[in-house]
Amino acid sequence: MLQKSFIIFFISLSMSIQVYAQQRARDLGIQIGVFHPGPLNSITDVNQVTVGHKTKIIGEDIRTGVTAILPHEGNLFQLKVPAAVFVGNGFGKLAGSTQIEELGNIESPIILTNTLGVSAGIQGIISFILKQDGNEQVQSVNAIVGETNDGYLNDIRGMHISKEDVMEAIFDAKSGMVQEGNVGAGTGTVCFGFKGGIGTSSRVIPTALGGYTVGVLVQTNFGGVLQINGVPIGEELGQYSFKNQLETADGSCMIIIATDAPVNERNLKRMAQRAMMGLAKTGGIASNGSGDYVLAFSNNPNNLIPHESKNLQLEEKKYLRNDDMTALFLATIEATEEAIINSLFAAHDMKGKNGRTINAIPKEKVLEIMKSYNRIR
Amino acid sequence: MLQKSFIIFFISLSMSIQVYAQQRARDLGIQIGVFHPGPLNSITDVNQVTVGHKTKIIGEDIRTGVTAILPHEGNLFQLKVPAAVFVGNGFGKLAGSTQIEELGNIESPIILTNTLGVSAGIQGIISFILKQDGNEQVQSVNAIVGETNDGYLNDIRGMHISKEDVMEAIFDAKSGMVQEGNVGAGTGTVCFGFKGGIGTSSRVIPTALGGYTVGVLVQTNFGGVLQINGVPIGEELGQYSFKNQLETADGSCMIIIATDAPVNERNLKRMAQRAMMGLAKTGGIASNGSGDYVLAFSNNPNNLIPHESKNLQLEEKKYLRNDDMTALFLATIEATEEAIINSLFAAHDMKGKNGRTINAIPKEKVLEIMKSYNRIR
Amino acid sequence: MLQKSFIIFFISLSMSIQVYAQQRARDLGIQIGVFHPGPLNSITDVNQVTVGHKTKIIGEDIRTGVTAILPHEGNLFQLKVPAAVFVGNGFGKLAGSTQIEELGNIESPIILTNTLGVSAGIQGIISFILKQDGNEQVQSVNAIVGETNDGYLNDIRGMHISKEDVMEAIFDAKSGMVQEGNVGAGTGTVCFGFKGGIGTSSRVIPTALGGYTVGVLVQTNFGGVLQINGVPIGEELGQYSFKNQLETADGSCMIIIATDAPVNERNLKRMAQRAMMGLAKTGGIASNGSGDYVLAFSNNPNNLIPHESKNLQLEEKKYLRNDDMTALFLATIEATEEAIINSLFAAHDMKGKNGRTINAIPKEKVLEIMKSYNRIR
Amino acid sequence: MLQKSFIIFFISLSMSIQVYAQQRARDLGIQIGVFHPGPLNSITDVNQVTVGHKTKIIGEDIRTGVTAILPHEGNLFQLKVPAAVFVGNGFGKLAGSTQIEELGNIESPIILTNTLGVSAGIQGIISFILKQDGNEQVQSVNAIVGETNDGYLNDIRGMHISKEDVMEAIFDAKSGMVQEGNVGAGTGTVCFGFKGGIGTSSRVIPTALGGYTVGVLVQTNFGGVLQINGVPIGEELGQYSFKNQLETADGSCMIIIATDAPVNERNLKRMAQRAMMGLAKTGGIASNGSGDYVLAFSNNPNNLIPHESKNLQLEEKKYLRNDDMTALFLATIEATEEAIINSLFAAHDMKGKNGRTINAIPKEKVLEIMKSYNRIR
Repeated sequence: MLQKSFIIFFISLSMSIQVYAQQRARDLGIQIGVFHPGPLNSITDVNQVTVGHKTKIIGEDIRTGVTAILPHEGNLFQLKVPAAVFVGNGFGKLAGSTQIEELGNIESPIILTNTLGVSAGIQGIISFILKQDGNEQVQSVNAIVGETNDGYLNDIRGMHISKEDVMEAIFDAKSGMVQEGNVGAGTGTVCFGFKGGIGTSSRVIPTALGGYTVGVLVQTNFGGVLQINGVPIGEELGQYSFKNQLETADGSCMIIIATDAPVNERNLKRMAQRAMMGLAKTGGIASNGSGDYVLAFSNNPNNLIPHESKNLQLEEKKYLRNDDMTALFLATIEATEEAIINSLFAAHDMKGKNGRTINAIPKEKVLEIMKSYNRIR
Repeated sequence: MLQKSFIIFFISLSMSIQVYAQQRARDLGIQIGVFHPGPLNSITDVNQVTVGHKTKIIGEDIRTGVTAILPHEGNLFQLKVPAAVFVGNGFGKLAGSTQIEELGNIESPIILTNTLGVSAGIQGIISFILKQDGNEQVQSVNAIVGETNDGYLNDIRGMHISKEDVMEAIFDAKSGMVQEGNVGAGTGTVCFGFKGGIGTSSRVIPTALGGYTVGVLVQTNFGGVLQINGVPIGEELGQYSFKNQLETADGSCMIIIATDAPVNERNLKRMAQRAMMGLAKTGGIASNGSGDYVLAFSNNPNNLIPHESKNLQLEEKKYLRNDDMTALFLATIEATEEAIINSLFAAHDMKGKNGRTINAIPKEKVLEIMKSYNRIR
Repeated sequence: MLQKSFIIFFISLSMSIQVYAQQRARDLGIQIGVFHPGPLNSITDVNQVTVGHKTKIIGEDIRTGVTAILPHEGNLFQLKVPAAVFVGNGFGKLAGSTQIEELGNIESPIILTNTLGVSAGIQGIISFILKQDGNEQVQSVNAIVGETNDGYLNDIRGMHISKEDVMEAIFDAKSGMVQEGNVGAGTGTVCFGFKGGIGTSSRVIPTALGGYTVGVLVQTNFGGVLQINGVPIGEELGQYSFKNQLETADGSCMIIIATDAPVNERNLKRMAQRAMMGLAKTGGIASNGSGDYVLAFSNNPNNLIPHESKNLQLEEKKYLRNDDMTALFLATIEATEEAIINSLFAAHDMKGKNGRTINAIPKEKVLEIMKSYNRIR
Repeated sequence: MLQKSFIIFFISLSMSIQVYAQQRARDLGIQIGVFHPGPLNSITDVNQVTVGHKTKIIGEDIRTGVTAILPHEGNLFQLKVPAAVFVGNGFGKLAGSTQIEELGNIESPIILTNTLGVSAGIQGIISFILKQDGNEQVQSVNAIVGETNDGYLNDIRGMHISKEDVMEAIFDAKSGMVQEGNVGAGTGTVCFGFKGGIGTSSRVIPTALGGYTVGVLVQTNFGGVLQINGVPIGEELGQYSFKNQLETADGSCMIIIATDAPVNERNLKRMAQRAMMGLAKTGGIASNGSGDYVLAFSNNPNNLIPHESKNLQLEEKKYLRNDDMTALFLATIEATEEAIINSLFAAHDMKGKNGRTINAIPKEKVLEIMKSYNRIR
């Protein structure tokens, strides 16, 4: 029975995947921002970045999963990437933040999962790293695991994420189109009262400003007063925080930023901070109960950080100047805003724990509203 | 001559003040957010908060000033307020931040002025505090001075702000309606390419959520891609950052948050962080060159902090729980967004240094655009 | 065979425990600081604080364990304690830090273990909390897990810590005398090139200053240039960092501070920061590879934080003023310094992975040196 | 009259300067640490670093001054240095910290003075920068001004520091031997109950570790339980914090770190954090009322930061790896400890405001105690 229902869900999932390719917000006429996306409008537009999912939809109650983002295709421990973390609201369990802050780098895949799955995320990463060729002497791994709480639809107390699930997500990582919506770590999440999930977007800044790419991937599970490209969708649909005064806006959002721009860890932190401004534009409010975290890394090939080095050999780096960062800030804001909207558009209705159902955002209705506000013409 | 031109400017200023009362964004049909403003839609809706200005428009080249915000009407040094600071982007010269962070309070008026006027701001505050009755033994004052750079319209290198100007602004502080636009610290500022200045707004959260007031005052001098209540005004007017690729968005924004809610310094910092989300909704991008700082204080009478106390006497406090903070977060976001828009709507054309002119935002055109997007009906 | 060697180690461990009671530094005449310890000179001098260990000495290669510190004897999730974290050097994997920072509290037992055991630590805490009476609805737990790397003596890559080990340590928690040295999370650690481990100490500040107790527990695994009460023991013994220029000082130190003083989260952070000053006095240098973290909590009964509350009910708190904190700072410095020395004095020789042996500090020799410097008379 | 007493003080000052050269702690046999100082045992051992003083000893009540540290000999605004700030305890008024944190650099001389002189410090720096050749277009200067409170000996409320004093200190800056003790910003300070002041020290790390120099300059004005090279001088002399329970340890310490090592802003911050560990070893406790700040900069010629650059030109940097930082950490700790002791040894008795006198540390007595502890042989 379990298997059967799994298959059915899998088919329905596959079907939705077939369809969504024509249904991303931008394809429907919602053009967010003044910069242009990359070819896939995805975090994978940043060369070498790969993404994998492990989706767990089992029985009536298990609606969860894992998403893995790999900063480059080599051995991440042996060739670390400059990185930074910004805490938008720290009601969350992000593993690995203090070492990123201290050392300025990431040395592992980035795992997203559910709140009580962080330990499995760490185990999966460590198992993966310890077994990797070249890592035979490794005794310390800074595993990066973010989470949001999918406990409304998922039997989160059952702790159904295993380290094997995490490793599967890592092994699933690939370039190309990223699955969005009810997949991986977004399988059971809820956003603005609608079904949330995984979303992604990218921006390529103008050639005269460097031509670099910024890619963003989000796991959306938060509330507020939804705006899509400035249009008050939440109010129009009658669904928003504090509509009935005591409704809460709790939830969380994990935001991962990748770039090929040669940016050091300090400026990556500044980019990470701007992602919260993109979230703000969707109507998110970083409510008390929200764990809103942003991770940013650069995989520019000139600035990778070897784990081992000859004694006292200096690292030779090439970095963008502070003065040249602003376009990357705007790209980050725009790609974050659009990634969140993409997560809503890609998601579909989900029935889960205790017979609860969360519906996808009503896309046709939304498009009508967008048109009534002349934001789609 | 100087005096004459000053008088003319003063008259034109007075006229604009007469007029703007009917021209605030909300009066014109722009209703930002889902919470309601207080009676004055101003930071002075928070009981006991007062605001004063000193505007310096002299000759062709001096276009600057000082704005003072006083957290309560008593002796601020002897009765400090819980407070916090959040740095949205630290390319600025805010004085006093580390002591706020360490001790969790503010003990002086808050002064806003121009970048090279910070030293005069500190001098003015110290002179004011040292001379105040009851402060005869004071030897240390943590002066809080924020700034933005008005050097495009103002002869900033001339350093025309004196400590006397600062004290005049403090003595000018009063409750009631706050002057907005080209006054005080906003006299020479530029925002989204239009004339910026001082703006203010407030929100009263629903009674069932506590009924507290959040008031915000801003000094706007920053760039980006202007949105007004979600409508792409900057794009419609053809004036936004990166339109011509190499245009910069530099500038700064000082944001002051006052509340009567019983909030401790940690939760005040969380409120301060949300103000940047309000700024984001106007299209601000916290560009590299922007000094974007937020100060938040609570003047709830139960939680004021006496400078002196009996040895070992415990402070008795009543605080809102973390769980009850979210409405205040949303109120902060909304009031910040509206205060920024108010600064634009209250500002008028200003001619200054080197014959440069910055025009006010074309309100009629803006209103037309807002209507074309059905955001004013 | 395994069992036999385990028994032998267990006996040797038991013997050392019998002996050490007379061998703590203070008993031997080493009086650190100007304040006095509590009755047990232990973190458990703070009322209600309990400590448990799970020691894993198995075969030739497993030398690791878990130490649990429980802030009070009730349900920690339902009655949280104000808390703060300070990062002395962030090359470590402390779980739970961002939520402490954001919300100002701890809601779980504090677990110390080895670097690759953090995931088991989280699992153990979550399992413990989820099963506890009254926590049936809990879906989110901020597990606090610190670590140091015992990979020199322990087969750390084998990942021998299980969630059951963690729960055993929690269930072992008790008041009274705390085992120090090669126990729990200190089983396989190395400090200043000698066997490190668990150490504890306390200070009671004078009655006229409040009479509060500060207790510290450390897991020592770091290097530097050892000083004991100011005496250059490392140099005298010819064993210190950079003696042979290229020797490293890597390692880590976890420091837990408990107090019954009514201190809020901001002032707890300030206390936490001072613990690094105590570490400094032992000659620690917070080397690049050291994960040096300090957690501080107050379990003063007036300031505990209920998980649930009536809507909008204010929290009533009584806090020490900033002005009354300095004695607690000094108490923290002194107790940290002494706890580290206690960890060295309680430790005994340990043979572990790959036949490696780390010797205990030569106590008799140390005492001779102390006498030659007239620091013991 | 004023001039006459000034001359007399100047002579007595000059005499003491003549003498102290033979009286620095190291010359008297106090050898702190395991690394060796540079040729001058001074911050000026770092190539191109210069230091200037303006000492104001006027009449009975004015005992204050200014000390200027210049990171290199060129135009500091046009060629900035990588820099960082660490706040040991933020009860102080350091100007400029947030921009250092955001942009990672310093663009001005570093000024130290008294608490109420910060505004004059800023004015002096700005005046200096605006007038400098090549800075004709400068409209924004991040002035770095630190302070400690000399109000016990100095009529601080009189605000006797002017911008001219600050500029004199800047123009006085020179390489070579640095005056220590009652000079410049140390004129009126008190440390451990003795006369404090300016102190400096340096360390050269071994050639095999890079051979770089770390120089430290301190302005000492803090309390605690004095230890000199581990010897309990405060207790032996019967003068230490909490000896009579209610004595306070308030005061402050400014610490400036210079290095020629190619260290980026993140690792400079880590070095800055270690300076507090050096302060700890002297018995400082970072009391509530202490403003303890550390600034660190690197003037390595490869990593200077031009204010202007061709559009999009990348900065090419060479940095030490994280793994190679530990020796610099230890050098920072040692040089800070010794700089503080040097400030005490160089200071002489000072009579000031209200007829108060603070005596220099009794050096002969101290040396006797050091010998009785076999720390000088």
